[in-house]
Amino acid sequence: MNTSVLEQLHHVFGERLRLEPAILQQFCQAPPGIRLSPPEAVVTVRSEEEIVRVVGICHEHGVPVIPAGARSSLEGQINAPCGGVCIDCSEMNQILAVNPTDMTATVQPGVTREQLNSYLRETGLFFSVDPGANASMGGMAATRASGTNSVRYGTMASNVKAARLVMADATVAGIGSRAPKSAMGLDLLAMAVGSEGTLGIFSELEVRLHPQPESIVSGVCAFDSVDSAVQTVAEALGQGISIARIELLDTTAVRACSAYSRDLRLEETPHLFLEFHGDRATVAINVELFTENAREHGGQVRFSERQEERSVLWKARHDAWWAFHAFYKGRKGLATDVCVPLSCLSACISATAADIAASGLDAPLIGHVGDGNFHLLIMLQEGRDESPEIQQFLARLSERALLFGGTVSGEHGVGQGKIKWMSAQHQAALPLMQAIKSALDPQNILNPGKMYQHSA
Amino acid sequence: MNTSVLEQLHHVFGERLRLEPAILQQFCQAPPGIRLSPPEAVVTVRSEEEIVRVVGICHEHGVPVIPAGARSSLEGQINAPCGGVCIDCSEMNQILAVNPTDMTATVQPGVTREQLNSYLRETGLFFSVDPGANASMGGMAATRASGTNSVRYGTMASNVKAARLVMADATVAGIGSRAPKSAMGLDLLAMAVGSEGTLGIFSELEVRLHPQPESIVSGVCAFDSVDSAVQTVAEALGQGISIARIELLDTTAVRACSAYSRDLRLEETPHLFLEFHGDRATVAINVELFTENAREHGGQVRFSERQEERSVLWKARHDAWWAFHAFYKGRKGLATDVCVPLSCLSACISATAADIAASGLDAPLIGHVGDGNFHLLIMLQEGRDESPEIQQFLARLSERALLFGGTVSGEHGVGQGKIKWMSAQHQAALPLMQAIKSALDPQNILNPGKMYQHSA
Repeated sequence: MNTSVLEQLHHVFGERLRLEPAILQQFCQAPPGIRLSPPEAVVTVRSEEEIVRVVGICHEHGVPVIPAGARSSLEGQINAPCGGVCIDCSEMNQILAVNPTDMTATVQPGVTREQLNSYLRETGLFFSVDPGANASMGGMAATRASGTNSVRYGTMASNVKAARLVMADATVAGIGSRAPKSAMGLDLLAMAVGSEGTLGIFSELEVRLHPQPESIVSGVCAFDSVDSAVQTVAEALGQGISIARIELLDTTAVRACSAYSRDLRLEETPHLFLEFHGDRATVAINVELFTENAREHGGQVRFSERQEERSVLWKARHDAWWAFHAFYKGRKGLATDVCVPLSCLSACISATAADIAASGLDAPLIGHVGDGNFHLLIMLQEGRDESPEIQQFLARLSERALLFGGTVSGEHGVGQGKIKWMSAQHQAALPLMQAIKSALDPQNILNPGKMYQHSA
Repeated sequence: MNTSVLEQLHHVFGERLRLEPAILQQFCQAPPGIRLSPPEAVVTVRSEEEIVRVVGICHEHGVPVIPAGARSSLEGQINAPCGGVCIDCSEMNQILAVNPTDMTATVQPGVTREQLNSYLRETGLFFSVDPGANASMGGMAATRASGTNSVRYGTMASNVKAARLVMADATVAGIGSRAPKSAMGLDLLAMAVGSEGTLGIFSELEVRLHPQPESIVSGVCAFDSVDSAVQTVAEALGQGISIARIELLDTTAVRACSAYSRDLRLEETPHLFLEFHGDRATVAINVELFTENAREHGGQVRFSERQEERSVLWKARHDAWWAFHAFYKGRKGLATDVCVPLSCLSACISATAADIAASGLDAPLIGHVGDGNFHLLIMLQEGRDESPEIQQFLARLSERALLFGGTVSGEHGVGQGKIKWMSAQHQAALPLMQAIKSALDPQNILNPGKMYQHSA
């Protein structure tokens, strides 16, 4: 990188420009099989104007910029394979406004979801998207995050209403609309959400909030087979039963989570973890309708309104990553996700389970099953993450998702990890994405080497 | 237009190429103040391959193409200000597949919403988007249509899952995903929906379906003022009360509709027309919660489960256009719509009502009030539609919507009619839309003179 870039950045940001290798190392992340590439510099910004300053300097010299928030992405979204400057937005963490009537909050991109929900606690509203990690709003928007309750409340695609976006040439555009809907022009907001920092950098977001439910009932339901669990879910959704969370755990996942959580007592069979939201009476009806449905498929249901039992359940679900690592001592988990139409989910999981067994892998499965989305945590022996067998297994998993009409990632995104699948999935649509990228970032300075093309 | 284009089209399409002025006249539509511009030719297509043939020929010669479906758009979306060939998709009306588990239907673009819902009647599912007119799926996707029940079921933005799009160079791209969600790349589908034929032509769509509700209860609620009605709606939505339709009629609209419908007996005050969907018990709870809420604002509520009463109500709502024309004999209605955040709706309507009165206009108001969206039908004296007073009133309405943080159109779209507002609304974001348009259609043959730039 041109030394004059560093000089200019230092002139503006002083000590907030960091160049120490130990710091740079904290601002990159790479999925298995991809080289870890730290940026050449990190700048901590505190305002939109400061993002504009960094992008302006980098634009002038053709230097890559990589935005970072909570750094919890999984597919190398904040790696720096082409070098450049990482823009650390984590200190842009002001909640600027909450509008109870419109049920929206205006936030800076570094605000985390837990921070926002703590702030909202007394308002009767909450922010729904929960990808597990305490991710930042900017990062969640950039990766089109979702999570356990998207089946009811939607992904980031439907929970960002408007935003300000710093473009490659350091101009700033307001995109989206504060109105509940709009038919005025291209939906640039929908295109920016999920663009992983390749089209622009979020400097402000207006997100949707939802009423805190009067009543929350959670429960578990044990099934003889994954197929019975998936059929129950599909039928319940088809009947219009309103469910806020529906998580599938296969037998391996149940075994590991039960071993890890003293308070979770589950039979070693596939389970659904469930949650229902609404007024007391509506929740009771939905629980009853779901229970009938589950019993027809041999499901054994146990519900509770007690806060403690709910905490045990969702703590176990959120701790799954730790549980799996405790269960498979000394192993390292490789997380991946795919998503298929609900009608193909059972067949896709079943083929995947057979593949796991035939490959001699240990890979517990957890799924946001109402969305057709499932995750595997492949527990690797030391040094095996780059082995051809693992790469071949991942390739078969991706091919299978496409064969079943699905997508290679439901929520982790493309980054560098899944870039090689973009062409197989999108075919004639991939050049359109690349044309849009070139039109908006002709120098290719915004998070290069991600999503569209290998960094070569 | 180059005669060789017509020769080639005639060679391929024979009698399905129409050139008669009387036919061409049927394939254009212009809002007030815009010149009616028929296309130079109309070709009726019956397959994706045929769309590709027409676009291929036009692409070769730089001739504009304008897609048409049910021709019910309102802002000149199918006018031909730059000449060219109109592609009539109305005979591409096959329902290709219904998948009950995924709750989707795959349709050709000329399928109308009433046709699809008739076909679905026995399946327990329905297609929700209802803009009033019996519009086509391709047209509704192209204009990002919504309507009375979008407050519960969403607009076309959330009801199209995947599509095939014929691009300007006659290639075909599959966009979107059959999976319930995806984090693989730019959301091209969201960008195509609402692009009004300027980025590509829909040749196939996979749309979302919803479970037919077990119970439907509809009703009316009279208020002393529009403000009380709007406050009731905002509070009800803020409490999470589930309402499938919430239509506001101001006093003028109520007067005209009551005069037109023998069976509708309403006091001459602002009213909400409401509908609740769900299982019987849930609907009962929501009706009860809403009623409490409405009474606190002085609302007088009357609900019914009887199909006949529901028919009277929604027939009156759907016949509003006719009712207004009957009430104001000899006048011609000019329809327009704007949309603002719910928190500003009451103030925006109130300022608009004052403007209507001060301008000496007759303009009944009907609103999809749960979406912050309202329509005016300005009843014009003969020859007054291009008068400066009307244009000035419309300009003030648009400015007011922007001032209140809203959008110049909630659902009618841009076409030619609202093109002059694109810059005021989008500012720095408009050049981004234009850059994307240029990248995907460098010759500007897809519906030119719409959305981005004046045809002049």
